[in-house]
Amino acid sequence: MRPRIYLAGPEVFLRDAAMVGARKKAICAEAGLDGVFPLDQGPLPEGLSRAARAIEIARRNEALIRGCQGVIANMTPFRGPSADVGTAYEMGFARALGLPVLAYSNDGRGFFVRTAAQFGGPARLARRADGDAEDPEGLSLEDFDLTDNLMLDGAVVLSGGAIETEAMAHLPAAGRIAALDSFARCVRALAARLRAG
Amino acid sequence: MRPRIYLAGPEVFLRDAAMVGARKKAICAEAGLDGVFPLDQGPLPEGLSRAARAIEIARRNEALIRGCQGVIANMTPFRGPSADVGTAYEMGFARALGLPVLAYSNDGRGFFVRTAAQFGGPARLARRADGDAEDPEGLSLEDFDLTDNLMLDGAVVLSGGAIETEAMAHLPAAGRIAALDSFARCVRALAARLRAG
Repeated sequence: MRPRIYLAGPEVFLRDAAMVGARKKAICAEAGLDGVFPLDQGPLPEGLSRAARAIEIARRNEALIRGCQGVIANMTPFRGPSADVGTAYEMGFARALGLPVLAYSNDGRGFFVRTAAQFGGPARLARRADGDAEDPEGLSLEDFDLTDNLMLDGAVVLSGGAIETEAMAHLPAAGRIAALDSFARCVRALAARLRAG
Repeated sequence: MRPRIYLAGPEVFLRDAAMVGARKKAICAEAGLDGVFPLDQGPLPEGLSRAARAIEIARRNEALIRGCQGVIANMTPFRGPSADVGTAYEMGFARALGLPVLAYSNDGRGFFVRTAAQFGGPARLARRADGDAEDPEGLSLEDFDLTDNLMLDGAVVLSGGAIETEAMAHLPAAGRIAALDSFARCVRALAARLRAG
């Protein structure tokens, strides 16, 4: 049986989410992996409230991850300088289970530069007595030469991998989120690793 | 020995993070819990690169969570409509370990309203053929009467709890992130639950 790989990412919010999911699964299949896309689920029970439907989707996604041998996460920024929180949650969930977590981001800029850009650039930042940069709202910026929050980069590095990036910050969000070259590199890396045991 | 509770949240980015951590731990102690704040760690090894330091912090935070009996997460929005991704990661990590995940948010608005506000309000949203609302970047909005992304609300509800909220959307971000009334309610709920076994 081919190893099952959970495909986490904000592409589920795209209009053509199902098509992107199908392309991701095809790339997995070429590498001998079975991609599991969160939208590939049976119908929900009838008669649930909207909130209860959502919680049932969360429960099913957790069960899907438990049935997988690895996760590839799309860390491309989503509505702000960081990855989608649902994706971040799933990365943490998989890490705690001991699954390898690989990831990619199609932004290409580092986390510090991207966060500073949200506030109009580094010139808009203050400097604290301890040297940390601070945004105009009084919150510090992580400045560790990483792709995103250190827990997310940590998941990938502590899994023994590296985040694959692609410099597409100039593209509209939907195009950036849908692009799959860096994803394909993650798939090949994970397939090689699972083959090596 | 008092149950150890990991205190996840973006207050680590506040200028007075250590003081907020001390207040959280005092509230935990009053309820018979031992609050574990991520910044309470020994010095890092000398000579590491910035990236290696950050990954070591991630590794230690994961180890701290593994040593805890529960998590209370501050889901107050951080630099966008959603919670801090590090917090989301830690919620997922704890859930996969089977720990109860409780959470609070000091925004008070629902996730849909908050996300729509980022784009200038509901009038700026489009409506897809399937009924889903779509932002000007072509990405759908979750509209499930939840506090945040369904995986985050799912962690709390599937843990048998409910997210404590406080309507402080009018406050500056730092004040919203630091406020502790809803946190104290989580502490009391978790203490009662751990006593009940």
